[in-house]
Amino acid sequence: MAQEFKVDPWKVSGKVDYERLVNQFQSQRFDPDLLKRTQDIIGPNLHPFFRRGIVFSHRDFDKILDDYESGRGFFLYTGRAPSLGMHIGHLIPFLFTKWLQDVFRSNVYIEITDDEKFLSNDEYTLDQTRKFAYENILDIIAVGLDPDRTFIFQDTEYIGNMYPLAIRIAKKLTFSQLRSTFGFDNSTNPGLGFYPMLQMSTSMFEPRRCLIPCGIDQDPYWRLQRDVAESLGYFKTSVLHLKFLPPLTGVEGKMSSSQPETAIYLTDDPKTVKNKIMKYAFSGGQPSVELHRKIGGDPEVDVAYQWLYFLFSTDDNELNKIREDYRAGRLLSGEIKEILVDRINSFLDSHRAKREEAKKLIDTFKSTGKLASLMRATVHE
Amino acid sequence: MAQEFKVDPWKVSGKVDYERLVNQFQSQRFDPDLLKRTQDIIGPNLHPFFRRGIVFSHRDFDKILDDYESGRGFFLYTGRAPSLGMHIGHLIPFLFTKWLQDVFRSNVYIEITDDEKFLSNDEYTLDQTRKFAYENILDIIAVGLDPDRTFIFQDTEYIGNMYPLAIRIAKKLTFSQLRSTFGFDNSTNPGLGFYPMLQMSTSMFEPRRCLIPCGIDQDPYWRLQRDVAESLGYFKTSVLHLKFLPPLTGVEGKMSSSQPETAIYLTDDPKTVKNKIMKYAFSGGQPSVELHRKIGGDPEVDVAYQWLYFLFSTDDNELNKIREDYRAGRLLSGEIKEILVDRINSFLDSHRAKREEAKKLIDTFKSTGKLASLMRATVHE
Repeated sequence: MAQEFKVDPWKVSGKVDYERLVNQFQSQRFDPDLLKRTQDIIGPNLHPFFRRGIVFSHRDFDKILDDYESGRGFFLYTGRAPSLGMHIGHLIPFLFTKWLQDVFRSNVYIEITDDEKFLSNDEYTLDQTRKFAYENILDIIAVGLDPDRTFIFQDTEYIGNMYPLAIRIAKKLTFSQLRSTFGFDNSTNPGLGFYPMLQMSTSMFEPRRCLIPCGIDQDPYWRLQRDVAESLGYFKTSVLHLKFLPPLTGVEGKMSSSQPETAIYLTDDPKTVKNKIMKYAFSGGQPSVELHRKIGGDPEVDVAYQWLYFLFSTDDNELNKIREDYRAGRLLSGEIKEILVDRINSFLDSHRAKREEAKKLIDTFKSTGKLASLMRATVHE
Repeated sequence: MAQEFKVDPWKVSGKVDYERLVNQFQSQRFDPDLLKRTQDIIGPNLHPFFRRGIVFSHRDFDKILDDYESGRGFFLYTGRAPSLGMHIGHLIPFLFTKWLQDVFRSNVYIEITDDEKFLSNDEYTLDQTRKFAYENILDIIAVGLDPDRTFIFQDTEYIGNMYPLAIRIAKKLTFSQLRSTFGFDNSTNPGLGFYPMLQMSTSMFEPRRCLIPCGIDQDPYWRLQRDVAESLGYFKTSVLHLKFLPPLTGVEGKMSSSQPETAIYLTDDPKTVKNKIMKYAFSGGQPSVELHRKIGGDPEVDVAYQWLYFLFSTDDNELNKIREDYRAGRLLSGEIKEILVDRINSFLDSHRAKREEAKKLIDTFKSTGKLASLMRATVHE
């Protein structure tokens, strides 16, 4: 019997079967032909997410490449429901979006759904979710987005510019569709019933195609968007679906802010990082060194290896060597963990410095940068 | 068997039984004691709507009087879903609000729900409902509101300042409550499911009690408001329920923009006014002059008399004389109609001039006046 797993915009649990997700969501597999075409256009230095199948599924990415080749171009959009702290998994769409922005020189829109976070959590006040937003925006800026080509906004601050478009979207939809798409019921509050219009609106900020790099858990919004966009005079959005960075505790589900042992937070200090990896990172190794030397480890379930694969070993030769050495028993679980601890701490060290610098850039990204100031003066209809 | 009638925010039909409405809506009858207290506070020159029972019901108006006497004061709020043209009945809450503003020197907030109009009518574009809003605002300004104590705003333009408060309200409510309050169902669009939060928000624009003069058809919004206001740190709103100006065609229902023969529009020229009144105004007179002279007419069903009673004969002595003369057969239906035609045309003549002047004041009421500029700088939470 297939293992149970669940993926929706508010919860990812169980071991995610990406093949089944492609069928379940009726998206398109990111296949070798599309990979080849992407490489032909971008060149040999494809991002590891492309090379390693972390981009496993898409919607109309081929049309994005057409639009790029035709000169019409496209824009990038991703976002975040702000949380008390961000962990490394949360950075994935932003790191990838930054890379895509550098390659294609595209505008990037980043929507911070402080309203969603407030509306979907009984325990949070609006002040709290806006404080989370401020802190999260610093982490996002720290990935190195272009200050003149990026606009970061919070729903509660920018809705004045989005509402006309949002209600045009709303008028195309019904409660029924929201129920079946998001599982809303009679106990859902009407704010949560409306906020998806804002999340969809951003994909219509420009009169050309939008590309959204995100987890497939966000896909329900984009399916609705694709149902209504053309009738409003906009393009159906394109999507790149990224695999979830596995939790430290094993390759099931997604890291969760409510279970600190499953994740490395961007604020974790070097000692905490080391302790967490050593203590919690699920090992694919054998119970004893002797046995490990003899039969080797399993990189597919070894979380430290998986994290190198996802983020922390971008050199394919190095990664291949680590994998083969681990399989052959030449490399121990603890040794892989040590490599990972060094890489994470070096990444976080640099991230912390860039995050500090970001404090000076927050107004640029939200209001005064080239794209931001244009957006502040634009009402989307 | 009681006659069937229906009153909800989108439709009023049948002959309205105001006694039954007070029971059905569980509001408070505006009784002689409250009238006496109102008169003691305001003085002898009460507005005819008070003197003549057109204010037939209320919620907590006694507390408004308490707050006035204690010096805390209160603010006034009314509004409008903009329509292609306004008829005389549409002016009733604004004329009354202007009078209350003069007496109490209160701030007045006027919400133009251009979003509601767009969301609830398949045939209208957002551009159309915003054009309606512009035209309707001119008619509203023309009633003579104080430019420094009045703020007029459209939802699509002001939501940026209201959204934080609106989602705090939304979080206190459920789809279920909206269904039972407004009759929404699975086919309702999610914009219409959210917009009531905006209509409720305005009643919390100041940290003191709000007084809403309106038709009782708007009461469902205020019942919901009263359910949640105190838990958000605001006051339950007070309401004054005004009777509906009867349609020309008879004392049933409410004038309707979709049936031009039932109403006098603010743009109707003197000839049109005369033709409509003469042709359509339902008469309480007898079939022949001889019979009328003998047994007299019935002012209760005579629409021309009723319009004098509501709006166009503010002198009680004059009105009493007209009523008694009509009952006694000394005054004919046609003669009452002629009085009414003169009064309406004189009113519309003056209204048109003030409406022309209003074009210069629109920015004052929406942005630059004392209250408006304060509101433009305020985010309601």
